[in-house]
Amino acid sequence: MILAVDFIRSYVEHAKADGVVLGVSGGIDSAVCLGLSIKALNKGKVTGLWMPYGEISTKYINIVKEHFYPVKCLSKPIGSIVDRAVAITQPTDDLRRGNIMARTRMMILYDYAKANNLLVVGTSNRTETMVGYFTKWGDGAGDIAPIANLYKHEVVEVAKELGIPDEIIRRVPSADFWEGQTDEGELGISYEDLDAILEGLEKIHTTGSPLEVYRTQRQLESKYSVDMIDHVLGMMQSTAHKRLAIPNPDNWHGWEW
Amino acid sequence: MILAVDFIRSYVEHAKADGVVLGVSGGIDSAVCLGLSIKALNKGKVTGLWMPYGEISTKYINIVKEHFYPVKCLSKPIGSIVDRAVAITQPTDDLRRGNIMARTRMMILYDYAKANNLLVVGTSNRTETMVGYFTKWGDGAGDIAPIANLYKHEVVEVAKELGIPDEIIRRVPSADFWEGQTDEGELGISYEDLDAILEGLEKIHTTGSPLEVYRTQRQLESKYSVDMIDHVLGMMQSTAHKRLAIPNPDNWHGWEW
Repeated sequence: MILAVDFIRSYVEHAKADGVVLGVSGGIDSAVCLGLSIKALNKGKVTGLWMPYGEISTKYINIVKEHFYPVKCLSKPIGSIVDRAVAITQPTDDLRRGNIMARTRMMILYDYAKANNLLVVGTSNRTETMVGYFTKWGDGAGDIAPIANLYKHEVVEVAKELGIPDEIIRRVPSADFWEGQTDEGELGISYEDLDAILEGLEKIHTTGSPLEVYRTQRQLESKYSVDMIDHVLGMMQSTAHKRLAIPNPDNWHGWEW
Repeated sequence: MILAVDFIRSYVEHAKADGVVLGVSGGIDSAVCLGLSIKALNKGKVTGLWMPYGEISTKYINIVKEHFYPVKCLSKPIGSIVDRAVAITQPTDDLRRGNIMARTRMMILYDYAKANNLLVVGTSNRTETMVGYFTKWGDGAGDIAPIANLYKHEVVEVAKELGIPDEIIRRVPSADFWEGQTDEGELGISYEDLDAILEGLEKIHTTGSPLEVYRTQRQLESKYSVDMIDHVLGMMQSTAHKRLAIPNPDNWHGWEW
């Protein structure tokens, strides 16, 4: 937590920005980013934007707002913009609609940041980043990403340290693109298993030791089926393009993760 | 040119995409990207989207459409989306409006790509990329960037090789965010000088040889004032965040370009 707080403070200073703005959803990730930003900066330098689409429950966002009161949390409904875009693009599925929502939020956040000389705090964690569970140039965008190095279970730890209310911590994670959507349902795996497999795969990828590779693989395969491990590996590989620099003829040498 | 064509073909194949889509403006960069994409892929696999805001002249886009006929060039006006966004964000300057336009175009392009299993071709060249003359997550976004390794004067050479009409090649470059906007006016320097200074600075940055640094600096300073060189260096440094991976507490070690 100290690391993230120092990082935010130092980066914002270097950038000569007057503070930060971030999208808040009532979920744990954005609540943690809000809490870290407040610890890093003066309360007056942090703004949360709640950007609901349609008639969505205000229960969780109100818990977050109350918890962090008097930090500024503004409501910017995106319904009319998204509806115009949808009228033009005519998406036939929920995912395309969801992507439009995520990118519209990015647009609003960046405009607010530009108008007030703020940086945009991205709220993606390491788990969703690694498996590409975010909209490219949408919720994946940001000027700084203070929790992008933390697995979901580490975000939960930080949330507890920050004293974030239990209802937010225990809330079922969802991108809220449609009714009943849950992260774990879409990912096809629980966060607990996903984190464990990702940690193993990252260890295999980064260690230089063949023995460590052998041990880690043995350990993973004693707990998880090869199918499940391959499912995670497949998500990582198929979404690598979301994490890497945009390829051009000079810098592209084939894919790896 | 061969390099870029091979790159596009190979990347699209690897990605198992059915083709590409790109925003076309009637300017040279997007015309070159369109031409390269057509050379790389079957004509039917390339779609250009013209996304005008307001009552903009169709003169140049018609030249491009005619030149590349029968390649599909669709018109998707973004006025109603941008106007809704502007009504909510109330931008007080042209740049904020322009950023909203650029990001709206990104949103439309990506939706079209998703709907048709296409990749989005980014049309940024190396010159504008190096000085950050693009909207972050807007026109700077793309799945592949076939001319991001080419300086503006190299894009002109490729345009000639591709047989792109002279009127497009000689057109004064502009982002068209507002009436009378020109790239060179905004950048405060001509593309010719900018390219020459950038090439010198990149050589200084990448060479390992102190003698080469000495010679290159001498050469630059014999042709350009230190003020002008510093102006370019300043643009590169202040926009580095647009080119680098999003910083998090693990990967940030201060800025460099």
